[in-house]
Amino acid sequence: MKSAEIIAIGSELLGASRVDTNSLWLTEKLGDIGVEVQLKTVVGDDKARLEEAVADAVKRADVIITTGGLGPTEDDITRTCTANAVGRELAYHDELEANLRERFRAWGREMPEINKRQAYVIAGADILDNPHGSAVGMLLEIGEKRVINLPGPPRENQPMFTNYVLPRLRELVGDVFVVRREMKIVGMGESAVDEIAAPIYTAFEGVQTSILFNKTEVELQIAVRRDSKAEAEAIADDLTAKLSAAFGIAMFTTSGETMEAVVGRLLSERGETVAFAESCTGGLVSRRITEVPGSSEYFLEGLVAYSYPAKVRMLGVRQETLNEFGAVSAECAKEMAEGAVRVSGATHAVSITGIAGPGGGTEDKPVGTVYFAYAGPMGTRAIKLFLPGDRYLIRWRSSQAALDLLRRSLLRRGQ
Amino acid sequence: MKSAEIIAIGSELLGASRVDTNSLWLTEKLGDIGVEVQLKTVVGDDKARLEEAVADAVKRADVIITTGGLGPTEDDITRTCTANAVGRELAYHDELEANLRERFRAWGREMPEINKRQAYVIAGADILDNPHGSAVGMLLEIGEKRVINLPGPPRENQPMFTNYVLPRLRELVGDVFVVRREMKIVGMGESAVDEIAAPIYTAFEGVQTSILFNKTEVELQIAVRRDSKAEAEAIADDLTAKLSAAFGIAMFTTSGETMEAVVGRLLSERGETVAFAESCTGGLVSRRITEVPGSSEYFLEGLVAYSYPAKVRMLGVRQETLNEFGAVSAECAKEMAEGAVRVSGATHAVSITGIAGPGGGTEDKPVGTVYFAYAGPMGTRAIKLFLPGDRYLIRWRSSQAALDLLRRSLLRRGQ
Repeated sequence: MKSAEIIAIGSELLGASRVDTNSLWLTEKLGDIGVEVQLKTVVGDDKARLEEAVADAVKRADVIITTGGLGPTEDDITRTCTANAVGRELAYHDELEANLRERFRAWGREMPEINKRQAYVIAGADILDNPHGSAVGMLLEIGEKRVINLPGPPRENQPMFTNYVLPRLRELVGDVFVVRREMKIVGMGESAVDEIAAPIYTAFEGVQTSILFNKTEVELQIAVRRDSKAEAEAIADDLTAKLSAAFGIAMFTTSGETMEAVVGRLLSERGETVAFAESCTGGLVSRRITEVPGSSEYFLEGLVAYSYPAKVRMLGVRQETLNEFGAVSAECAKEMAEGAVRVSGATHAVSITGIAGPGGGTEDKPVGTVYFAYAGPMGTRAIKLFLPGDRYLIRWRSSQAALDLLRRSLLRRGQ
Repeated sequence: MKSAEIIAIGSELLGASRVDTNSLWLTEKLGDIGVEVQLKTVVGDDKARLEEAVADAVKRADVIITTGGLGPTEDDITRTCTANAVGRELAYHDELEANLRERFRAWGREMPEINKRQAYVIAGADILDNPHGSAVGMLLEIGEKRVINLPGPPRENQPMFTNYVLPRLRELVGDVFVVRREMKIVGMGESAVDEIAAPIYTAFEGVQTSILFNKTEVELQIAVRRDSKAEAEAIADDLTAKLSAAFGIAMFTTSGETMEAVVGRLLSERGETVAFAESCTGGLVSRRITEVPGSSEYFLEGLVAYSYPAKVRMLGVRQETLNEFGAVSAECAKEMAEGAVRVSGATHAVSITGIAGPGGGTEDKPVGTVYFAYAGPMGTRAIKLFLPGDRYLIRWRSSQAALDLLRRSLLRRGQ
């Protein structure tokens, strides 16, 4: 397996608020063709350090990729430092200067003299075209090694990598195909998921699995690596089917969909509609369902009834219910959901009422106590959950539980 | 100024979905005492590469910090590799073994033999206590250089750094105090902000400025470095006041608050309430205002009127208005806002109706066309914005513009 190193260049990446995210995308694309990233460096606009970083990487790795530092200013030292690190000169390309002048002319501007720097290329390197910016990339072959300089902005470096670099690296490594699947499971933790999944996926060879907990759901990703695409796909399908059977209704997607997209698809397939009555989630469930393009087809309205009077007036919750049981109760949740169906005319409604904190908790109903109700053709039913975390997490987890309650109700009912 | 390098250790950090975030926190804390991070490395559980990374860092930097790889398993190679890189032996500490056994006993478990690895420390290094985990840290003085090994989990390495490492580094660098301020500006781009801000902040010496665009607002951060805390604070106050005067109402905070927190504070100070009537934002504005703890004091309700009938029924928008001008119009926005005040009884209401895309755009009203209206004691007024971006960004920017419309209305009215 070929190894790679990635060097991210730019002093702004050494601050306390920016991370190098280019390397994540590159790592995945390199992984797809069987090239493994073994070291990553972030270095500022510092000639000595950058030269050393490139020279060391060339000693160790088969594929060396730099991102950034190809602009026209003094700070942009990638060209010079890479050339020095590999013992080459820079060569001036008149045709690149002509292209740059043309590009500026098209913008209605004169090319600043400073941009002439961008017409220098490491001697012997192939020039990688950049339709989205003024900095061209470079690809240098040194024996079996490949040194590649890409611009920093993702919208420039990603198409450049896909169009020019990937085919060249494929020549180097031969045919490897990676097929990925992303499954998501709700209502279980990471280790519980792994306990069920491990006996299944470990029976498959050449499959990489990763299990990630993401606020409210566990993402189970598989990557099947084979030298034929059809074979990789057949194995991915087989493994996905086995995992899906093992998790049942808890697995809500095998194709990386969001929970809101899954719920939207189920409603859309049935030609049915929904409304939400939200208290502690404050509009988050409505926001999530409307995140999906085309949601106006099935989402009628959201009623964010934050205060007691709003619950009474908007949803027809009875004052006696609030007095007797409080707003955070199964009774109130049921009346909210039934009220939402009644006033909106939607097929289904789900309500959420709870205590997101940090204040408002009591001994009986501590922060994290949340009631949900479903109302619709499946009747009315309420559930109570205790959700851990801070205000942000409790609200997020509540929104997920509300959508999941709707999903399970829709699936139970069938199509 | 002393320089630092940070080495993050662990193969999991070389995948396509994880970034090293420890270094961000460390960078800020190091910056506060005047130590500048000049290079960062991420390396897997690979002995040769890690040894080389540490040895190179020791050659270049004054302060070398590693994170991770101090656990008890085969993969945890930080101890060995750091020792090799600096040419020292590992020494076994019986008292550490005793501590580990005690720690396991307190958990009601027997210490696995494998954990004895964690009793090895680089000869001559100071041991850094870890009350939150089984891996101790190490601090090694080599002349004027400091090599520090911290565990990976933030809840272990952050207190260790604060309690033991920071005081030792302060001895090395002397007293430096950094005071930070975070200002936020709405309705302007990065370069427009810099054009106004640069003539002001460049007149101050020893001030680091960073300008970051974050979806809908520009963050202008300043860090004032002085050898007296009082002096640093006085200068930060002076610079903040000058910048605040220059930006006027466009600067909505000088203390890093979110837009929703600022709006909430203004409402709370006035003892007034608000309701939102949302169409294309689908609940996002309500969700944002309720993100702030205590928002039930001033937020009464959110009316997510996604469909035409919902707009008529929930908010009393006239069918003729919808027929004549459409839902995406100043007229509809005004009736939505007025309706929200009427039905909710809130002091103020803001409405949002627009086309978030990807579908639904026309020649007259392309995707990104959004109308907003304010209704309340300041009368009713509508504004139209054209917001660029994809569905996610258009919705986010709309929510910001809605909150900002409310903020400006509140400020115009005074307290």
